[in-house]
Amino acid sequence: MRVHVYGASGYAAAQLIALLARHPRAQLGAPESASHSGEPIAKHFAELRWIDRRFDGPGSVLEQIAPDDAVVLAGSHGVAKTIAPHLLERGARVVDLSGDFRLEPTPAVYGFPERYRDRIAGARLVANPGCYPTATLLATLPLARFAPVQIVVDAKSGITGAGRTPATNSLFAEVEGDVRAYGLSGHRHEPEILQQWRAAGIDASLVFTPQVVPVSRGMLVNAYAALAQPVAEEAVQAAFAQAYAGDASVRILGDGMVPSMRSVRGTNDAELHVSVHGNVVRVLCAIDNLGRGAASQAVVNLNIMHGYPVHAGSEGNAWALSW
Amino acid sequence: MRVHVYGASGYAAAQLIALLARHPRAQLGAPESASHSGEPIAKHFAELRWIDRRFDGPGSVLEQIAPDDAVVLAGSHGVAKTIAPHLLERGARVVDLSGDFRLEPTPAVYGFPERYRDRIAGARLVANPGCYPTATLLATLPLARFAPVQIVVDAKSGITGAGRTPATNSLFAEVEGDVRAYGLSGHRHEPEILQQWRAAGIDASLVFTPQVVPVSRGMLVNAYAALAQPVAEEAVQAAFAQAYAGDASVRILGDGMVPSMRSVRGTNDAELHVSVHGNVVRVLCAIDNLGRGAASQAVVNLNIMHGYPVHAGSEGNAWALSW
Amino acid sequence: MRVHVYGASGYAAAQLIALLARHPRAQLGAPESASHSGEPIAKHFAELRWIDRRFDGPGSVLEQIAPDDAVVLAGSHGVAKTIAPHLLERGARVVDLSGDFRLEPTPAVYGFPERYRDRIAGARLVANPGCYPTATLLATLPLARFAPVQIVVDAKSGITGAGRTPATNSLFAEVEGDVRAYGLSGHRHEPEILQQWRAAGIDASLVFTPQVVPVSRGMLVNAYAALAQPVAEEAVQAAFAQAYAGDASVRILGDGMVPSMRSVRGTNDAELHVSVHGNVVRVLCAIDNLGRGAASQAVVNLNIMHGYPVHAGSEGNAWALSW
Amino acid sequence: MRVHVYGASGYAAAQLIALLARHPRAQLGAPESASHSGEPIAKHFAELRWIDRRFDGPGSVLEQIAPDDAVVLAGSHGVAKTIAPHLLERGARVVDLSGDFRLEPTPAVYGFPERYRDRIAGARLVANPGCYPTATLLATLPLARFAPVQIVVDAKSGITGAGRTPATNSLFAEVEGDVRAYGLSGHRHEPEILQQWRAAGIDASLVFTPQVVPVSRGMLVNAYAALAQPVAEEAVQAAFAQAYAGDASVRILGDGMVPSMRSVRGTNDAELHVSVHGNVVRVLCAIDNLGRGAASQAVVNLNIMHGYPVHAGSEGNAWALSW
Repeated sequence: MRVHVYGASGYAAAQLIALLARHPRAQLGAPESASHSGEPIAKHFAELRWIDRRFDGPGSVLEQIAPDDAVVLAGSHGVAKTIAPHLLERGARVVDLSGDFRLEPTPAVYGFPERYRDRIAGARLVANPGCYPTATLLATLPLARFAPVQIVVDAKSGITGAGRTPATNSLFAEVEGDVRAYGLSGHRHEPEILQQWRAAGIDASLVFTPQVVPVSRGMLVNAYAALAQPVAEEAVQAAFAQAYAGDASVRILGDGMVPSMRSVRGTNDAELHVSVHGNVVRVLCAIDNLGRGAASQAVVNLNIMHGYPVHAGSEGNAWALSW
Repeated sequence: MRVHVYGASGYAAAQLIALLARHPRAQLGAPESASHSGEPIAKHFAELRWIDRRFDGPGSVLEQIAPDDAVVLAGSHGVAKTIAPHLLERGARVVDLSGDFRLEPTPAVYGFPERYRDRIAGARLVANPGCYPTATLLATLPLARFAPVQIVVDAKSGITGAGRTPATNSLFAEVEGDVRAYGLSGHRHEPEILQQWRAAGIDASLVFTPQVVPVSRGMLVNAYAALAQPVAEEAVQAAFAQAYAGDASVRILGDGMVPSMRSVRGTNDAELHVSVHGNVVRVLCAIDNLGRGAASQAVVNLNIMHGYPVHAGSEGNAWALSW
Repeated sequence: MRVHVYGASGYAAAQLIALLARHPRAQLGAPESASHSGEPIAKHFAELRWIDRRFDGPGSVLEQIAPDDAVVLAGSHGVAKTIAPHLLERGARVVDLSGDFRLEPTPAVYGFPERYRDRIAGARLVANPGCYPTATLLATLPLARFAPVQIVVDAKSGITGAGRTPATNSLFAEVEGDVRAYGLSGHRHEPEILQQWRAAGIDASLVFTPQVVPVSRGMLVNAYAALAQPVAEEAVQAAFAQAYAGDASVRILGDGMVPSMRSVRGTNDAELHVSVHGNVVRVLCAIDNLGRGAASQAVVNLNIMHGYPVHAGSEGNAWALSW
Repeated sequence: MRVHVYGASGYAAAQLIALLARHPRAQLGAPESASHSGEPIAKHFAELRWIDRRFDGPGSVLEQIAPDDAVVLAGSHGVAKTIAPHLLERGARVVDLSGDFRLEPTPAVYGFPERYRDRIAGARLVANPGCYPTATLLATLPLARFAPVQIVVDAKSGITGAGRTPATNSLFAEVEGDVRAYGLSGHRHEPEILQQWRAAGIDASLVFTPQVVPVSRGMLVNAYAALAQPVAEEAVQAAFAQAYAGDASVRILGDGMVPSMRSVRGTNDAELHVSVHGNVVRVLCAIDNLGRGAASQAVVNLNIMHGYPVHAGSEGNAWALSW
């Protein structure tokens, strides 16, 4: 597959470009960036010095697109809605990293492979899930059968989740030495989570606390699900084991090990820890916000859309960058 | 007051020494350290280069103690139990930073000034609360009247909370880039929290998740209290406003501001944010684990025991160090 | 003294405001910020939550200025040149943190107290030295009598030196995990250093390498001065001891201690280490780029201009913030 | 090749194990660790959760060794001297990461491939260079023809260079927020550098300043070489271009790009920047202290010893971990 990247100058796009460069079945099409047009990728991303390519200018993707090419839209929220129809029209497969196509009603398939793999296989337009929803769904969907009433999600994200556009809140001198909650009166990822919970039969209310930690990349989501009554820990752990049986990218930890942002850094992996405390189920879930939370999940979706092995190009941490 | 420090080579002790050096009514007695006996404090703590004193050797505190001197015990858990009786016998006032005297039955008064100020005033032995319990109690005690059924406490601590004794888990290369949960099957601070909840009439169960964040000092505790039924946000916020009226060290934030480790760094202050989501009350509480969570709370307790102004020597962030 | 702050929303200005708030002889005039006009300072600087003031809007300083008021100009380079004449005209004393008045010909006195204290005392316009030149001059001026031929200055700065205006290079995810040289083909501080060297009789050439380290605040400058011939270490150390005799803000370290950014963080102090290697003198110098390198040096200059004790309001680390 | 790792619980060893796991021609033999005997590697290194192996106990390497096996000695300095003879006796090829065999007289070949590739090819015992010497030699050996008189080396290292054995100086709360010089009165790497300089015909004196920066892994060495007379920048740059022609692991940067720890993180690459200032040549060199400075250089040496392609198993950053 030839994969164009629209909005190629952000963190998720850079990670995607690194992934595609080593993908056995992929070829990088146009890396389009309005702001860095014509400049070497190596100049803007120290981690990509080994990639000898330049950013293409505005309009390049549309110009170079051929039927059956794929495009990953990595621009800001709001832009994909305008561009995607033109790309689809020309026969392209599209994976959108923004929030434009995630909420119903939407023409897109929600790109959460654990749940929608078959529909993704047939899709031309896939909405890649947000990083918070990805980790939250991994941590909670297997709970459906226990009918949680209310779920508290205490979530910590590395700062790359805020993107590469300069902002005071993302400066080193602001992020260092603090853990900073935000979106306390409502976060755009809540409807995305609720929509998927409802689809999976989870009727719980959601209390969601997103926080920035002084880490470049990584995400840890702690979900606390209150059930109507106590449940046996073994039953819950069995449900998780069953849900992820055969899913090589999900590790359920025991034996004194806890989910770690560093274990999954630069990978498509997720790590889970599940325990029960009376009628509360606690699930910790670590992913890489730029990996499973963005770029590598996009690659997995592209693989499924093309009929390639699911984890082609994202095995292990073979493509770790180091923000 | 003359204040001796036993176990003077840890982080909390160093912060305490800095505080005492500027306290208008205090004088540093013997800074006893078995490991650094005779060496300049300035050599072991870059932040204390302006203090021209040496560590005293083993036995110094006991040797130099005079009636009405004060001693802060900053050694490891388990040691205070042995030493405190000898100090009390000689007429000293003792504040213990370890966990030795916190749990009932105990001869000590629990040094949480918001609740036990009068008893502290008359005490000779005070058990300084742990950092996690301090932040948790600040975030939850005003909820007693709402009869919470269950409280989830998701807590993040800077690594100085683990002390200065070298350990693999405290190395820079282990702490950086991760958020690491620990004590998932039970943490020694849980009984301390539960005991104080019960004393305050809170019958809730506790799910407690302590985590290390890549920050030297600071603590953020997010408490999620499930009530039997929904409650009005105004009622809860009013309860907090009333609970901390006249307490200059507690700031309840609104207006888009969120509790920040950096706001309270090097201070005795706490910052709170209170909101209600259906029948869940969410309270965020930031303190400095070495300030309100240890050294400055000890100073406040010493002040109360001596009849000095409560915040003498700990106003503002006048004594911030910078780990 | 009443001190207005123009350009009050940067890091150095915030540190200055904190200093002035505790200065025994100072009162904060208008904190003017075009971008944050009317908003609480507490909202923009978590570290200043204890300051109950709002930013004033454009023109406020000029409006509120009274004869004998003082103004610190903390705006971007280029702006001071336009504003200073109006302020001087109205009888104000002005300290400029920018580079506008540092280079000859200039109407300003260069605010390096170790050398120009008498002239500063009589000045109405003082050019506060840059952070790199401050540390470099502290490390090299005592070498004049040894006639260095060539001096290499390898300098590391915390990222606050780049200011608070959002820029890709200052983002957490860019600064973390790297040491980044810049200005390799010439840095604006070189002429400032050379001008002061010449004034002090140092004819050496300069090779200057500024670098950003993943630290919020702090500066370490290593100067390597090649002499025409070997020199005795004792002679050089004696020259430094003599140069800083009676200067309470400069510590010359021995006894296994090395200059530390953390030792001087939040202070006006400098730490030096001096050694000789054949005909090379090596001097390490640590300062706080926002303290001695900006805000506290400005306070010292204001003190001298007003005839106050030199270190009033900047003793110890009594005013440390924690970026 | 089957490669045993002695002293397998340190950072360099862990990086080596990761490299070997993906090496097309290598197989991990016994990972011997006295301290972690029998425990899963995944438990001690979050980054190695994907490796399903346990540490072997004391004596395992010696027990399992077969003729033509290879062993990498990653224990502390002083131990290799005792063990290596026994391994060589049994026909093994040995690469030692410690300093035991680097200094003449030594039975080992110095494993700096740019200079000793042919001798390495025939060696049974290779002394892997230290990280500081590796970067310093890369930055200075091409200067031989310009006869430098004196070279200042200002070096910054990530803290993993100090190893994984717990020590106060390596704690997060000590390393964060500072740049810390050490070994100011002489560092064990100086003789190693001087020995190689002399062998290459460089007669310069050395002033060496090692420093720890708050970075887990990475090294930046700035070399300032004073020549007897000025030299044309083009001539020096040409010498470097020629020296590294055909060496895919060394990038000489221009075009506004500067050597970056992050560019080379997790790789065997080095980045150089060369400029001339009068009679001073300045060379910046970035490597990964655990990559080119330890584990990947060991793999390269193993490759050369076995006649494999030089960069087998260390191409790109395919094996980046993320300390």
